[in-house]
Amino acid sequence: MRIVDIIDKKKKGMELTKEEIDYFISSLVNRSMPDYQASAWLMAVWFKGMTEDETACLTEAMINSGERIDFGELTNRIVDKHSTGGVGDKVTITLIPLLAAAGIPIAKLSGKGLGHTGGTIDKLESIPGFSCALTTEDLKKQVKEIGVAIGQQTGNLTPADGMLYALRDVTATVDSLPLICSSVVSKKIAAGAGNIILDVKYGSGAFMKTPQDAIKLAELMVNTGKKLSKPITAVVTSMEEPLGRAVGNSIEVIESIDFLKGNIVTGDIAELTYDFAKVALMLTGRFLDEQTAEDYVKELIHSGKAIDKFKELIIAQGGNPEVIEDYNKFDQPQFTIEVKSKTSGYVKKIDAYKVAYGCKLLGAGREKKGDPIDYGVGVFLNKKTGEFVNSGETLYTIYANDSTKADLCKEYCTQAYKFCEEKPEKLKPIYAIIKP
Amino acid sequence: MRIVDIIDKKKKGMELTKEEIDYFISSLVNRSMPDYQASAWLMAVWFKGMTEDETACLTEAMINSGERIDFGELTNRIVDKHSTGGVGDKVTITLIPLLAAAGIPIAKLSGKGLGHTGGTIDKLESIPGFSCALTTEDLKKQVKEIGVAIGQQTGNLTPADGMLYALRDVTATVDSLPLICSSVVSKKIAAGAGNIILDVKYGSGAFMKTPQDAIKLAELMVNTGKKLSKPITAVVTSMEEPLGRAVGNSIEVIESIDFLKGNIVTGDIAELTYDFAKVALMLTGRFLDEQTAEDYVKELIHSGKAIDKFKELIIAQGGNPEVIEDYNKFDQPQFTIEVKSKTSGYVKKIDAYKVAYGCKLLGAGREKKGDPIDYGVGVFLNKKTGEFVNSGETLYTIYANDSTKADLCKEYCTQAYKFCEEKPEKLKPIYAIIKP
Repeated sequence: MRIVDIIDKKKKGMELTKEEIDYFISSLVNRSMPDYQASAWLMAVWFKGMTEDETACLTEAMINSGERIDFGELTNRIVDKHSTGGVGDKVTITLIPLLAAAGIPIAKLSGKGLGHTGGTIDKLESIPGFSCALTTEDLKKQVKEIGVAIGQQTGNLTPADGMLYALRDVTATVDSLPLICSSVVSKKIAAGAGNIILDVKYGSGAFMKTPQDAIKLAELMVNTGKKLSKPITAVVTSMEEPLGRAVGNSIEVIESIDFLKGNIVTGDIAELTYDFAKVALMLTGRFLDEQTAEDYVKELIHSGKAIDKFKELIIAQGGNPEVIEDYNKFDQPQFTIEVKSKTSGYVKKIDAYKVAYGCKLLGAGREKKGDPIDYGVGVFLNKKTGEFVNSGETLYTIYANDSTKADLCKEYCTQAYKFCEEKPEKLKPIYAIIKP
Repeated sequence: MRIVDIIDKKKKGMELTKEEIDYFISSLVNRSMPDYQASAWLMAVWFKGMTEDETACLTEAMINSGERIDFGELTNRIVDKHSTGGVGDKVTITLIPLLAAAGIPIAKLSGKGLGHTGGTIDKLESIPGFSCALTTEDLKKQVKEIGVAIGQQTGNLTPADGMLYALRDVTATVDSLPLICSSVVSKKIAAGAGNIILDVKYGSGAFMKTPQDAIKLAELMVNTGKKLSKPITAVVTSMEEPLGRAVGNSIEVIESIDFLKGNIVTGDIAELTYDFAKVALMLTGRFLDEQTAEDYVKELIHSGKAIDKFKELIIAQGGNPEVIEDYNKFDQPQFTIEVKSKTSGYVKKIDAYKVAYGCKLLGAGREKKGDPIDYGVGVFLNKKTGEFVNSGETLYTIYANDSTKADLCKEYCTQAYKFCEEKPEKLKPIYAIIKP
C-alpha cells in the first residue's frame, strides 16, 4: 500500500477501505508518513467528504492510536458532555456539578481552547489554584471519590487526532464534517464514558452556521457512535447570540456560580442546563418523565447540593473555594467600562461572533497553543435579546486591562447589537435532539 | 499575510492576487512555510484550478525564485524545444543537431527522466562518455562555439519548481493544468531561449489522454508565455503509439543517428522532426514558406551536415563519436528476443503505455531520483501501425539483461498490439499548432 495512492483515491472521490484508513493513521502516528502527505489527504477529504463507513473507520483508527480510559464497572453510569463550542458557553461548568450532585458520575476531558475566549479548562483555571492537569489515575480516583473530575486532554488519548488537528488548523481543513466528527467522537469514546451527550451548536458564534448543517453533523456523530457501539445523544442548539450574559473566563465562572447558587433561574443558561440535565437523567434511567426530572434538578440547586458539589470539585482540583462567596478572589481587571445605549427599544439580536471577536481583542482567548490568557477580561451583556433598553441605560460592560484594546472591543460589541420596536419572539435554545 | 488564509482562499475557489502568489512562493523557497501547507495548497489548486492570470503570476514567481540564464545578444536567435514526454520520443535528439546545422543556436536544458524510460539526458548519456553536467558558463560557451548544447537542469534555475514538483509527485497533485503549465513554462523561460517550442502530447502514452485536454494545456502555456512577454509555440501531437520503432535509451539514440544519417526518411519520427524544424526555421524568420524550409532541412541531412553536427555535439560533451559508425560501441544487452506474430493482418494500433510499461519492467527507466538506468535494454517495434505482418514474422524485438524481466515485458508488449484486416487510416502526427 502506498500513501500517494490513498491520496489519489480520495482525490477521485472513491471510498477508502478500512485497511487503507488504518494504514494512513498508523503511518501518521509512527511518523513513516510525512506531514505533507497527510495535509494533501486532508484537503482531498475536505473536497470529497467521507461516507459514514469511512468516517467510522477513521474514528476507530484514531481511538486505537492511543490509550483508552477504562472505568470498569462504573463505565455504564458515567456521563460525558461535550460542546462543539460557542460564545459564552459555560453549560459544562453549570451542568457537571449538578449531575454529580444527582449521583451521576462525570468524567470530563477537555482541550485548552484555541479561540476567541478560553475553553472550559481555561475558564475553570481562572479560579486561583484550580488545575486540570490530572493523570488518568487521578481522574479515575477523583470520579470514584466525589463523582466528578475535569481533566486536560493529554497526548496519550487519540494522538492521531492531535496530529491531524495540528495540521488542519494551519491548512484550512478544519471545517469538514467527517474530520470534525471523527475528532470529537474519537476523543469522547477514548475518554471512556458510557454515555455521551454532544451539544452541536449553530449560528453566527458557532462553527456550523445553519441548523441544517448542525443537524447533519449531529446525525453523523450519532451514527458514528452507533457503528462503534457507543450510544451518543446529540443536542442541536442555537448560538446566534452569546449564551448567558458573561463572555470571557472568570466572569463566565462567576455567572455559573450564580446559577448553581440559584440566583439565575430563567434565561438561556438556566434553560439549557435544565434541558441537558434532563437528557442525562433520563438517558441513565434515573427518571422516565421530563417534569419529574426537572423538578429534581431545581431542587438540587435550591437545596444547595449543586453549589456544594462545585465547591467539592474546586477543592479536589486545588482551587480556592472562597471564590464562591467572594468574587473578588478572582483576578480583577483594571478597567470596567459601562457602555450606554444610544437607542431606546428592544434588543433584536446580538451577533455572537462580534462579541467573541471583541473579547479576543481584550486578550480573553489565545491565537496559538501556549499563548497566555487574560482571565479577568471579558464582556458582560447587561441587555440580551428580547429585553428593553432605554437610551442612556447600560447596554453592556467591558472588563479590560488595556484601554486601547477596550476601545477596539467596544467597536465590535456596539456593532453586534441590533434593535427593534416590537418585542421580538423568543427562540428556544434547543433546536433538535438526535438520539441513537 | 498568512499562508493558511491563502490556502483557504484557493480552497473556496477565489482568485489569488499576485502578492499572495509571490508570498506563497517566497515562503516556500526561504523555507518559512512548512511543506504540509504547500501540499494542502497544491491539492486545493488541483480541485479549484487557477485562472490564466494566477497561472502567469505563479510562473513568474517560480522564474524569479532562482537564476535566469542570459544569452545576451544571442537570445533572440536561440531556440529551445521541450516535450511533455512520450514513449519513444527522441525528437529532441533528431531535431537539435539539425537546427544547429541550419545555423539556429540551441540551448537545451532537461531533467533526468522519472518514467518508464529515461529522459533525453539519460538517452544521450547512454553514449559512452557523454555528459550533460554542464555549468551555465559551459552551456553558454558551447552554444557560442558550436551552436548547440544540452545540459542537465540544476537546482539554480526555478528552485521553487523543484520543491513543488517533489511534493506533487508524492501527494497525487501532478495532474493539474496550471501546475504543469507553470512548471514547464517557468523552466523554459528561466533557461533563457528567445524562442520556445513546446510539444504537447496526448494519447495512451502521454499525460494528457485526449487532444482536447492537450489543446487546453497548450493554449494555457502559450497564453502564459504571452502574459510574460515570451513567445511560445505549442505543437499538439499524438502519442497513441510509440514514436518511431525504438523504445529504450541507447536504441533510441541509434534510431536518431539513423535518421540524421538519412537512413530513415518516412514515418512519424521523420515527419515530426521535419515539422518541428520547419516551425523553428519559420519562427526565427529563416524561411517564409514551408516547402522551401522542408527542402532545406532534407538537404542538411542528405549532405551529412546534420550528422556531422551531432558528432560535434558528442565530442563537445565528452562522448565517444565512434558510436555513429559502430553501434556496438553502445552497451550491449545480453538477450535479444525476436517475438513472432501469431496473427496475420494489419497492425491496427500499438498501446504506447503498455510498451512503455514493458520497457520499465526491463529496467529502462527509473522509479525514483537517483535510481540507475539500464541503457541497453528496450523494445524495437519491427511492425508499426498500418504495416502488414504475416503469422510467424517478427513483430517486435526485446533487448534485455534478465530473462524473467524479458518474459514480463513480452506479456505487456504482446497485449499492446491490436490487429485488423483492412489497412487502417494513417493518423497525422501533428494535431494542432498553437501560435502566440
